[in-house]
Amino acid sequence: MIEPNMATTLGIIATDAAVPGDVLTRLLRSAVADTFNCITVDGDTSTNDTVLAASTGVSGVVVSASREEKTFQIFEAGLRKVCFELAMAIVRDGEGRTKVVEMRVKGAASVEEARTAAREAAQSLLVKTALFGGDPNWGRIVAAIGRSGVQFEVERFSLRIGDVEVARLGAPVEGSETPAAEVMRSAEFAIEADLGLGKGEARLWTTDLSHEYVRVNSEYHT
Amino acid sequence: MIEPNMATTLGIIATDAAVPGDVLTRLLRSAVADTFNCITVDGDTSTNDTVLAASTGVSGVVVSASREEKTFQIFEAGLRKVCFELAMAIVRDGEGRTKVVEMRVKGAASVEEARTAAREAAQSLLVKTALFGGDPNWGRIVAAIGRSGVQFEVERFSLRIGDVEVARLGAPVEGSETPAAEVMRSAEFAIEADLGLGKGEARLWTTDLSHEYVRVNSEYHT
Repeated sequence: MIEPNMATTLGIIATDAAVPGDVLTRLLRSAVADTFNCITVDGDTSTNDTVLAASTGVSGVVVSASREEKTFQIFEAGLRKVCFELAMAIVRDGEGRTKVVEMRVKGAASVEEARTAAREAAQSLLVKTALFGGDPNWGRIVAAIGRSGVQFEVERFSLRIGDVEVARLGAPVEGSETPAAEVMRSAEFAIEADLGLGKGEARLWTTDLSHEYVRVNSEYHT
Repeated sequence: MIEPNMATTLGIIATDAAVPGDVLTRLLRSAVADTFNCITVDGDTSTNDTVLAASTGVSGVVVSASREEKTFQIFEAGLRKVCFELAMAIVRDGEGRTKVVEMRVKGAASVEEARTAAREAAQSLLVKTALFGGDPNWGRIVAAIGRSGVQFEVERFSLRIGDVEVARLGAPVEGSETPAAEVMRSAEFAIEADLGLGKGEARLWTTDLSHEYVRVNSEYHT
């Protein structure tokens, strides 16, 4: 039961710096939007997800409320790093996962469209079973992005699996299948779709769908 | 790769009655909306789905364009029956399915909301694995409907699995688990959620998610 909108987690982040409450809230929301809320294992959300951050100030370090100040910048980067590591730990712990995949979409008409496209691809059962099978089946990714409702023109679409370009401007790249399948034998790799339309970019982190996912979730009884 | 919006099918329906083209188009669209477009196996749509109907008129029977006429009513009922049977044949043929489930939602604020709620429940991997495991885990269904974005108040929510009421007004019904699990051993059964809010009703037909689904779709290579 793992999906953005908090992804079934109770995350508690503590800092001994002194951070103004409104600054901490703003930075946490922003970091969570790009980390905890950018992971999906199965699309099922939980009803009791929480991430909270507390600042005690006991270190005596005071974090400025100004984006220009070094203390702000260091704290923001640290908070993002912690959120990212915790979010990735959730994905790596996904039921029955054998792969962790970073699904990147760039060249979308907007960031929102890039996220929508990445989510549709990451949640497609056909894409997830292809990840499990190690099959560089980019047609399943094109189909998912194409039906997601975002602006899309297949002749502008390119796709990379790891460093291997498998599709360029809507056509398959000859000889790419074997090296792409080799990339997919790794436990963690990235898939990057370029829609070739605009500047919208997004990243999601997801898993494959394996027999073990079905076993864990069908044998668990209430 | 089976989901509404034509659900990966080439459906060809022929009649030897004479049906005016605009009437046939209208009746087909309406029948498809309630049948072919109300099935989902895995949420993945195909890019080449088609349902078409042709009328030859060789029987000499002329179908009236008026809803009041008997020929119209008989033809409409027959067309809906054919579409329903073809759509159900697709679901029964779903990759690796061991169950076919009619997911009904009633008492929703609108028909659109009923459809949204039914689809979220039917597409939830946790619900689908619970169907495979035969577990009357109504919490997974409540969670799916609750996150679907429709109007929802848990204390008005009731749920039946077959004839067995497992939840009434947000609370579990004592002693319902064993008879509900018995219903779930059938190959085909209905689950009915009553949101207790309005008059919106909808039905979708879906399958469970089994090991065989994962096998078929991970071992299939392009």
